[in-house]
Amino acid sequence: MRRIGFNAAMEHHIAHLIGILALALLAARICGKLVQPAVLGGLLAGVVLGSSVLGLVDPKSEVLHLFAELGVIILLFEIGLETDLVKLLHVGASSAVVAAVGVVLPFALGYAACRMLGTSHTVAMVAGAALTATSVGITARVLADLGRLQEPESQIILGAAVIDDVAGLIILTVVTAATEGGGVTVVSVAKEAAIAVGFLLATLLGGSLLIPRVMRLADRWRLPGGATGIGIILALGLAATADLVGSAMIIGAFAAGLLLARTPQAHEITKGVGSLGQFFVPLFFVIVGAQVNVRVFNVLDPANYSTLWIGGVLIVVAIISKFVAGYAPFWFRGRKSIIGVGMIPRGEVGLIFAQMGLANGVFDEGLFSAVTLMVMVTTFIAPPLLKLLFHRK
Amino acid sequence: MRRIGFNAAMEHHIAHLIGILALALLAARICGKLVQPAVLGGLLAGVVLGSSVLGLVDPKSEVLHLFAELGVIILLFEIGLETDLVKLLHVGASSAVVAAVGVVLPFALGYAACRMLGTSHTVAMVAGAALTATSVGITARVLADLGRLQEPESQIILGAAVIDDVAGLIILTVVTAATEGGGVTVVSVAKEAAIAVGFLLATLLGGSLLIPRVMRLADRWRLPGGATGIGIILALGLAATADLVGSAMIIGAFAAGLLLARTPQAHEITKGVGSLGQFFVPLFFVIVGAQVNVRVFNVLDPANYSTLWIGGVLIVVAIISKFVAGYAPFWFRGRKSIIGVGMIPRGEVGLIFAQMGLANGVFDEGLFSAVTLMVMVTTFIAPPLLKLLFHRK
Repeated sequence: MRRIGFNAAMEHHIAHLIGILALALLAARICGKLVQPAVLGGLLAGVVLGSSVLGLVDPKSEVLHLFAELGVIILLFEIGLETDLVKLLHVGASSAVVAAVGVVLPFALGYAACRMLGTSHTVAMVAGAALTATSVGITARVLADLGRLQEPESQIILGAAVIDDVAGLIILTVVTAATEGGGVTVVSVAKEAAIAVGFLLATLLGGSLLIPRVMRLADRWRLPGGATGIGIILALGLAATADLVGSAMIIGAFAAGLLLARTPQAHEITKGVGSLGQFFVPLFFVIVGAQVNVRVFNVLDPANYSTLWIGGVLIVVAIISKFVAGYAPFWFRGRKSIIGVGMIPRGEVGLIFAQMGLANGVFDEGLFSAVTLMVMVTTFIAPPLLKLLFHRK
Repeated sequence: MRRIGFNAAMEHHIAHLIGILALALLAARICGKLVQPAVLGGLLAGVVLGSSVLGLVDPKSEVLHLFAELGVIILLFEIGLETDLVKLLHVGASSAVVAAVGVVLPFALGYAACRMLGTSHTVAMVAGAALTATSVGITARVLADLGRLQEPESQIILGAAVIDDVAGLIILTVVTAATEGGGVTVVSVAKEAAIAVGFLLATLLGGSLLIPRVMRLADRWRLPGGATGIGIILALGLAATADLVGSAMIIGAFAAGLLLARTPQAHEITKGVGSLGQFFVPLFFVIVGAQVNVRVFNVLDPANYSTLWIGGVLIVVAIISKFVAGYAPFWFRGRKSIIGVGMIPRGEVGLIFAQMGLANGVFDEGLFSAVTLMVMVTTFIAPPLLKLLFHRK
């Protein structure tokens, strides 16, 4: 009998959501302490809170989805702020080769493996597409946590992962059109590619001219919130614009970070965004983890055999094909194994493909679970492997 | 033809929401610079973006509601962190008297005025109830922005506003039960009061014992996110708990701040929460502002005459009754006018009553608008008046 006003139900619902946020943050902190690297801890916290274990975090809820999206946007913004555009362009060729091989090889091998396992052409295509993804969020965070973001291997991974995300948009368009029976024309693919690449180039070029002026103005006007305030508005604004014109939100956020990294206020913004990141970024990992269905792992249930078998094959293909891609820039003198491992985690991008396959009726429950299994395993093994490799270095 | 996966529509919807957030923050920054104090700027930004002007910010959306709630929770947490519990208890008697008079007088005068204007008993009761509210969020922010949070007048206002919020919960219960024809028993009111007051006392007592230990543990374990991370979890957790047991979320958040203010990590947390506040708090003011229907102000439209007339009477009653309440602690030697003005803004709490009246069918559109008008005017005049009074001091 309280707060029984116009929106009493909503008020309680919101209180409930705020409780869930507190719980998710607490679980991420504790698991992040117990399990290293912290990303893995966050993912595990999500698994425990997620729909298949405790059922407290529903990753399909709009609000949590928004928080996850804000988390990955702020994460990529932070990574952008710590990235030197010149350095990134310097390793551009290596990144491009890693990305290209890391898209073609997993797709081809995944397609072939599925066909050999007896699936149809369409199913094999969607499964192959899911193998092409790279979760830049997971890898970038691990690299940042290890304090290795500035090393050439990390720069190549970062560049390749961003290119991969652009490529992912194009592949998603093509595969969606193909599975829906629509025509895939060279023109439509080219258009999609032009939009995705064009947005990034236009933003970086236009931003290089405009951003320093905007920051000077903000400084002179002493806008409340200061440089950090403007930086966050820019990151969110560019993310939304990216989606509007047909690119990916995280590319907009990354571009905002890259641009602001070159202004005198970069250090101030990095510090200011920090605590916002501390709030939103763990939520991203928890929500990615919450999508995991642990029942798939039950080897005692014969119903899981086929899923585990196909999943196992996909995992092997997924790991080998991305790992090999790391060796594609043969001229690079650094540790190519690090690059290969850095490209392995499929994360939320792989899950988008899996969900699309399920929603379109291309995948049955078993194949959906097999692809999800592949996404989970690749996402979980990369962080500890990266840590290990960097330590050996 | 892109991101046409499982949740393509949701993906775009989320990108749209992120764009709205960026816009709301930008508008709040610019208006906060042009119009002082910044709170007024934020409210004005909300009016412009809100449903009756540009229609970009829909205050009824669940997500924006959640952001507004997080904004006021973090705001009260920040205010709590800057508040000395001992000082607050020191002015406790003054606060209690201001709150008591500030509830009884507006209710009685509002009820009488409505009856004289010819409304029914029930309508007069709900309108009177709407007059009792105080928006602690608005006042607290203005006091903090003016750098006057530590002055005795501010402490009295803060204490009174918190008591007012507890009282508001009880009044809402009583009025809702009465308008719905349910029985209002002394027992039900006493129970509600006991819960609201009991939660605050239990939290402050239990927290005083537990919180220092928790912070020491977090320090020793070096949890990722540090003291700030734990502080935010505590603020959100106590807010959700407050709602769960039948109190108000902002009281939980305020209590969390009060408790942490007494730990050695207080300074670190205050600094860390700062940029989170910079993100969420302006959103609260924008969303409160977005609820304003500017059409009510159109004096050229005869349809508004009766609304403007009743609204005018309510405004006079609202201002005088709270202002007089400021003079209730006759023994206090400070500026009583500041206390009175600080209690004037009704803010979002007044709007909850107005919406309840409309939803229950107690108010027609005209009376709803009249009460909304009163809420708007009281919310808008208090910030500049407070600034003026403090400057004269």
